[in-house]
Parts: sequence; structure tokens; C-alpha cells
Amino acid sequence: MKNSVGREIPEYIEGYGPVKMFRGAFANFGEQSRGNVKLHPIKPGIKKLLSTIEEVLDKVQIQDGMTISFHHHLRNGDFVLNLVMDAIARRGIKDITVAASSLFPIHDPLAEYIKSGVVTGIQTDYIAPGAVAKAISKGFLKKPAVLMSHGGRPRAIESGDLHIDVAFIAAPTADAYGNMNGAYGKAACGTLAYAMSDAQYADYVVAVTDNLVRYPACPIEISQDFVDYVVNVDSIGDPSGIVSGTLTVTKDPVSLHIAKLAARVLEETGYIKDEMSFQTGAGGTSLAVAAEVRKYMEQKGVVGSFASGGITGYMVDMLNDGLFRALFDVQCFDLKAVASIRDNIKHQRMSSSLYANPHNKGAVVNNLDIMILGATEIDTDFNVNVVTGSDGIIIGGSGGHNDAAAGSKIAIVVTNLTKGRLPVVKDKVTTVTTPGESIDVLVTERGIAIHPQRTDLLEKLKGTDLPVMTIEELKNLAERLTGKPEPIQFGDQVVAVVEYRDGTVIDVVRKVPD
Amino acid sequence: MKNSVGREIPEYIEGYGPVKMFRGAFANFGEQSRGNVKLHPIKPGIKKLLSTIEEVLDKVQIQDGMTISFHHHLRNGDFVLNLVMDAIARRGIKDITVAASSLFPIHDPLAEYIKSGVVTGIQTDYIAPGAVAKAISKGFLKKPAVLMSHGGRPRAIESGDLHIDVAFIAAPTADAYGNMNGAYGKAACGTLAYAMSDAQYADYVVAVTDNLVRYPACPIEISQDFVDYVVNVDSIGDPSGIVSGTLTVTKDPVSLHIAKLAARVLEETGYIKDEMSFQTGAGGTSLAVAAEVRKYMEQKGVVGSFASGGITGYMVDMLNDGLFRALFDVQCFDLKAVASIRDNIKHQRMSSSLYANPHNKGAVVNNLDIMILGATEIDTDFNVNVVTGSDGIIIGGSGGHNDAAAGSKIAIVVTNLTKGRLPVVKDKVTTVTTPGESIDVLVTERGIAIHPQRTDLLEKLKGTDLPVMTIEELKNLAERLTGKPEPIQFGDQVVAVVEYRDGTVIDVVRKVPD
Repeated sequence: MKNSVGREIPEYIEGYGPVKMFRGAFANFGEQSRGNVKLHPIKPGIKKLLSTIEEVLDKVQIQDGMTISFHHHLRNGDFVLNLVMDAIARRGIKDITVAASSLFPIHDPLAEYIKSGVVTGIQTDYIAPGAVAKAISKGFLKKPAVLMSHGGRPRAIESGDLHIDVAFIAAPTADAYGNMNGAYGKAACGTLAYAMSDAQYADYVVAVTDNLVRYPACPIEISQDFVDYVVNVDSIGDPSGIVSGTLTVTKDPVSLHIAKLAARVLEETGYIKDEMSFQTGAGGTSLAVAAEVRKYMEQKGVVGSFASGGITGYMVDMLNDGLFRALFDVQCFDLKAVASIRDNIKHQRMSSSLYANPHNKGAVVNNLDIMILGATEIDTDFNVNVVTGSDGIIIGGSGGHNDAAAGSKIAIVVTNLTKGRLPVVKDKVTTVTTPGESIDVLVTERGIAIHPQRTDLLEKLKGTDLPVMTIEELKNLAERLTGKPEPIQFGDQVVAVVEYRDGTVIDVVRKVPD
Repeated sequence: MKNSVGREIPEYIEGYGPVKMFRGAFANFGEQSRGNVKLHPIKPGIKKLLSTIEEVLDKVQIQDGMTISFHHHLRNGDFVLNLVMDAIARRGIKDITVAASSLFPIHDPLAEYIKSGVVTGIQTDYIAPGAVAKAISKGFLKKPAVLMSHGGRPRAIESGDLHIDVAFIAAPTADAYGNMNGAYGKAACGTLAYAMSDAQYADYVVAVTDNLVRYPACPIEISQDFVDYVVNVDSIGDPSGIVSGTLTVTKDPVSLHIAKLAARVLEETGYIKDEMSFQTGAGGTSLAVAAEVRKYMEQKGVVGSFASGGITGYMVDMLNDGLFRALFDVQCFDLKAVASIRDNIKHQRMSSSLYANPHNKGAVVNNLDIMILGATEIDTDFNVNVVTGSDGIIIGGSGGHNDAAAGSKIAIVVTNLTKGRLPVVKDKVTTVTTPGESIDVLVTERGIAIHPQRTDLLEKLKGTDLPVMTIEELKNLAERLTGKPEPIQFGDQVVAVVEYRDGTVIDVVRKVPD
């Protein structure tokens, strides 16, 4: 059956179940519920501190078929997922589903566990290019991976769609009764926002720390009333893989040109104004857009309401310089952000549910004016792919992409028109992550395309010197530069289900040939 | 049927339902659950700000038989409960259950709504002496009032035992999308801790504010993802009734003597030591105990782990002077506490669930060493009454009494031996709020009694000059001073059910004669 972005999706997918078809960004709405949670209360005097991961596995009665979860605040420095998976594998446990908010190259050992059947399910918002992504794409994972968005994951957890048996929470600082924070410790990552739903809804919650402090661990981000056990290990992560020292604006002239064009679009269409809100990624081009927007804000004396998302030092500077009144932070990308979230009440933590869950009472993305997005591919319906690469292998995932695109008043995709001798603008993207209806503008170095529904924007850009054209014109331009690439020869096997943020299926990824 | 504190309790109470009998402080344990929550998500662009309480009542479809909730952080300065109830009454709505975390004399107008049938149920942790308490005691409320503890209330809400249709949250500061805090505004009360469970579990959540600020209202205590509507009113409360300027230690020589004795008991039994934790009430005698304990701490160079509960400036000073490393605050009692919780990360907010819910994964009371408690009556089994007065009329409720008594390692009741020509120590208390098994020591101006189970304490006090005697001796002493009072002539009608923190019934209150 075809869903509303024209994708042929089976009505039932083996290892996934019956499919709820994507029918539009806000079609699956109406009354929702947060599910039941099982609790094991403890009497005064009972200790939660355990000595080893092995002891933890005994206490939580780990067994075949369970779903265990992890957060990704330690990013490519995370040791916790591997520590836990190694211990599970040593026990001969099989058929584990790993529900990690994201996966990084450091988690490559998972690929072996996928091949050996220790791990048969993966549910995640993002998989960085690496061995795990390849193992999935090549069909080694027994059940299709489920790719969610950053808002879709807490939605799934809170609604009960994704039931977690045991949540393992990497805690840069914790006390022996389970209070924890990401603010301090040698693996400090700023906030633990992605782990909030896990802590609230898993049957068992385990804090894994390498910085056990005296009770209570202030500031408390996840509190003891949600935590069953605490375990102290040598090291939960490698600081150099967790946060960058600093992230800087790109120096690439093409990227800078794109950023300037994007900021011009925002200025000409009236989005740069008092009380504006803004989100952008941490990539060089995205930060360059922030820098260009900043110039307009300063020229005009504009003070914005908030910036949100993963936060970099660049956005901290904008807060401290009075360009925004507040930051909503779901993840600290660098040391300046970590320091700021510790000390400034205007730099506000947000859980991933508060950030982007479409089925709570109003996520922060709902209040976004401007969203700057990347794209691996974008098609002439403005559908965006950030899941699969040109070879059909998984190279990412939505993260907050389709969440912020849906919530914001203007969602701008900034990208080079071609990448690595391949066109970015195509007839059909390989995999739909974000539906075209949520994308308003595409800015490339060769031209700007406006979604035809946004006649208001087209009207405002008429008469400017901005290189506005149709997206078909951009596609033709791209193809003239690169040629039309051969279509990828996928197999039949569904290796990943791409869930839209509301839990409907917007696309599937099929097996690539060996 | 008799429960384990010897109270005759009906197995079924009309208007309440089947009774779970109290069988001991930790008898009702084992696996628990947090219940399902209904949600009404909203799409981007939908506004939450309404103009009047009337408009709110339309939106939440208020109707006969609903349960609505309030928090008590504005204490005797709260305008919100009356505002809402007046609007409900004007509509001719009947049969409302009011689930307020506490009720104060300012809520006396409720008594009229009880008599007219607008309100037929009350569920609360504490009712200050006044018209509402009298109306209940005299049998005007259609269903028995349910008296809970501060930990029992979030337990009941989270488990689904107490289902809230609409939570009205007085918000000293809020933005138009529902983020709120108690830190700022003319009705600033410090924290909104008692409203957390209401916000998380009610079908509809409404922020009622008189300080609508630009988005976002930092620091966010209750976030937008839990809030359906916001309404801006002229005034949510009278600051003079909300927090005191300062609360001071008693100057009464008898109370000071009791405080000195209590602190001596703690010192002689070894509880005043590094990493100790401590809670006391905000009354003059309770604060005097803190002052005496402080002296020992300073003499010995002791640094405590934390103090908890409702927080006064006195405890803030102890934090700032290095006597405790942290405060856990469920309610700010004075302006110094309000200022401190805003600015000091060591002064930590705690929800009432984190504070005292027996059925989560470990409340803060579980980690308490020392708890100083008051009592209206205490009997020779050490059972304590803080619910009914000498005339049998309701004058209070557990608040955190039975929570902190159950959690702490040493629970000391400090009280005058007699009050108003009546004995405080009796054969049987009028109403059991806290079971004797949770009370370790009674300190009066005439002598000290130790619970016979605490042979360790008796051993340690042997050979000191402290006036240790049996509780029967104290009872006899009291009766010699006052005579034995005539028993109260109660009617048959159960006017209130006293729930222990775990939801079992520890006692009932029966109707007093007119």
C-alpha cells in the first residue's frame, strides 16, 4: 500500500508488526495516552549501589528477548553501551533489542552481536555511518531496525509502543541512591535530556557512573525516585569523544555563500524580528547560518525569544550577548555549552519529550519560528532523506529533523546542490525521513526553491535579487552537473522501518546487495 | 474489623468504598504501578492562553461529579481555589470533589459549597482549623473526606487511586504556553513541588497566573508539555498569607527546654555526626531543636548531608554556613527560602513524590536520619494524632508526619506534656495519624520516653542524666496534672477516612455532635 508520500509499504512487516501508514504530518492526532509503568518500591535502608555490571544483570533478571535502552549524550565517547552488551553477551543471552537514542562508530562492536544473534532488534533515532549501519543495511539484524525521530522516541516510550525492560543511563555524576546529572564529572556532557523518558518508563532503571559523589548529587537532573540501581565503573566514556572543545563556523566559501542566501531569505520574508525563535544544527554550514542571522539581528537590534536543539558555544554567546532571551537545550555539543547549562537559568534543559514529542501537550518545536536543516537528498516534492546514502546504506536518521520541520513556521534546508559527484536534488529521494509538506525552502549555492504551497514566501521574494527558481529547475541543474545516477538495486528484505515522529511509517529501507 | 493499630474500621465505607486495612508501616509493599494518563496533544499554532476562568471551565468541559485539584503553596494567601470554586458554583455544577494538597482558613467559603452540595468530596493532606474542618466534622460533606499524607497524595495520584479531571495550578509566574515557576512574581512561593503529580497525571492541567511573562518562563518548574491551558487573572494570592517575612525560634522557656532535651537525646545516641540528615517543622519548638542541634554540630565540626521538608530561612543559614551540604525543599516557608531556591543549586526542589511517596523507587524520607515531629496527642503505644483536636473536630492532618516518621532512623516527637489543661499523652489517641512503630522517642518538658523496641537507644541513654521514663509514667504524670478528660461522644457517621501513606486505612473520624 502507498502512504501519503507515495512510498510502497507492506501492511505487515515481519519482525515489526502491522504498519500504521503515514497519512500527513498531523493526520495521526487526537487523544493519546501515556502508559502504565511497573515499579519496584524499596523500604528505607535498602541500598541501590552495586559493584559490577554483572551484579546489575542479576538484579534486573536480564533474559533473552528483553529490550534495553541507552542515551547518546556521550556520543562517540560512550563506553556504557559496549560495557553492558559485553556483559550480556558473556552470559550467553540472546535476542536483545537495543533501544539507544543514537548510535556512533564507537558502538561498532554491536555489529558482531547482531551477527551472532545476541542483538536482534535496534530502535534508534540516528545511526552514524559505521559497522552497525552496514550490518543492518546488509540484512544481518533479525528484525528490521526501527528508526525514529528524537520526538518520536519519547512518544513511543511514553505511549507504551516501545517498552523498555532495563534502561542503562550513563551518568557523569551520580550518588549511591540514584540521583544523577550530566553537569559534572570527567565525562560531563551537560544534560541527560534524552534519558528522561527511559528513566520514567522503563521497568528497571540503572545509573552507570564513574563519578560517584556523596548524597545528594546536585543539581539533580534524574532523581532517585526513578532509579533502581547504581553501579560505579572505571570509566563511562572518553571525554574527547563526548564534547568538542569548540565548534566553529565553516570557512568553506560555498557553504558560507549558502548560509548568506539562507539568512537573506529569512530577512526578506520577515522572520528576523523581535521574539523570533531559531534552531540550527551543529554542522559548519548550519552554524554559518546562525552567524549570518546574527548579523541581521545586530543590525536591526532584534532580540529573539529562544534558540533550541543541541546547543553549541556559538548559541551560548548569542544568549550571553542578549540576542536571545533563553536557550532550550536537549544536548550540549561543546564545553562552553556544558558550562553554561550548569550556571545560567536562562539556559534551560529540556527532555526529548519536551523538545519534540508530537503527542504531549505542546513540544518546544511547536514554538519554533525558524529551523535550519541539512539533507542528504531532497526531491521535487521537497521530501528529505537523511537516513540513507547514495549506496543505499544507512548513514544517519531523523534525529530532530522531521520534528523541527513539522513544528517550525519556516523550515529551510541548506545544502550543496551536489555532493561527491552526485545530485542532492532528485526526482525521488531514496528514503523519506521528512515529508515535503514540512519543508518550506531549499537553499543551495546555485539557487533557492520555495515550496509551492508557500505562496506568501514566493510573493515576498519576488522583486529581490535572490536566485529563486523551481525545485525542478534545481534538480535539472544538479543532473546537468553530475548526470542522473543509476538507481540503487535494493533487495526485497525490509531492513529498517522509518517511523515518522507520530509512529506511522513514512518509509522502509530495504537490503543492499553484498 | 480492627486494623493493626487496634482501630475498629468498617470494611466498606459508604462514599469511600472498600477499605484496605492498615497492617503495619511497610506491610503494603511489593510491585506497584503508575497509571495511564489521558492526553490532548495540540498542533503548532494552537494557543493555550484563555481570558477567564469561565472560558477555562468551557474548555475542560467541567461537569457534575468531577474531581479538581489544587496545590497549597500559596497557603493562607491562596485566591485560586476560591476563584475556581466560585465560577463552578455560579454554573450550578454539583458534586465536585476538591483534591487540594492542603486547605487553609482562606478556603472557608468551601464550607458553604459543602453545605449546598456543590462540593461533595474532599481529598487533602491537611485542613487547618476553620469552617471547612468544622463542616466535615459535623457531617455536612456528602462523602467522607479522605485525609492523606504528603507522600500518600502523589502515590494515590500516580497509581490512579485518585483520578484528577482538572488540575488548577496557581502559578506565580507562567508564560502563555504553560511553562511555570514559583520563583518569581508578586505571589512568589519558591517551588511548585506539591503540584507536580497533579500536572503529570490530571486529564487537564490549567496554569492560573497573575504574572504572565514572555516565553519561556525560566526557570521552568512545570513545563508546557504537561499543561493544556493558561489563564491570566488579577491576583492569585495575597503575599502576606503565602510566605512569612521570617520565621523565628521560639522564646518560650518550656519549648526551649524541650528542644534542649531533644538535642541531648540526639547527641547521646550518636545521631549528631558527619553526613547526618535532618528534618524539622517550621513551628517555634521545631526550629528551636534545629538551633540546639546546630550548636552540637558546630562544637564538633560536624557537616551534615542534607536537611529536608518545608524549608525556612533558618535551614538556609545552616546550608550557607556549611552545616549541611544540601537542602531538599518541598515548600518554602519564608522569603529567605524563596530567594535561596532561586539561586543555589545546593538548595534542591523536590516534588512531593520525590519527598515522601512510599511506592516510588525511594523517597527522600527514606534517607532521613533525624525527624523532629509535633503531636496533638500521643498514646502509650506511641501512636500519634495530628488530625483531631480535644473536641474531636478536625484540626490538621498528616502532612508529612507519617511519611517522615516511617522513613527516618530516629523520629522524635517534641511536645508539652499538657496543652490547654488537657493531657497530650493518653491511653488511646482520638485518631491515629502515625503508627507507634514509626515513633522512637517522645520528649516533653517533664520527661523522655523511648519506644520499647528501641533498646539500642535505651542502652545509650542509660547512665546519662536525661529524665528517661516509660510512656505510661508520662501519661500518669500528665493525668495527675490535668485529670483524665471525658471521652468525646462521637456519632456513628464516618466523616473522614484517614489513609496511611500507602493508601491503607489507619483510622476514621466520626461525626461530632452539633
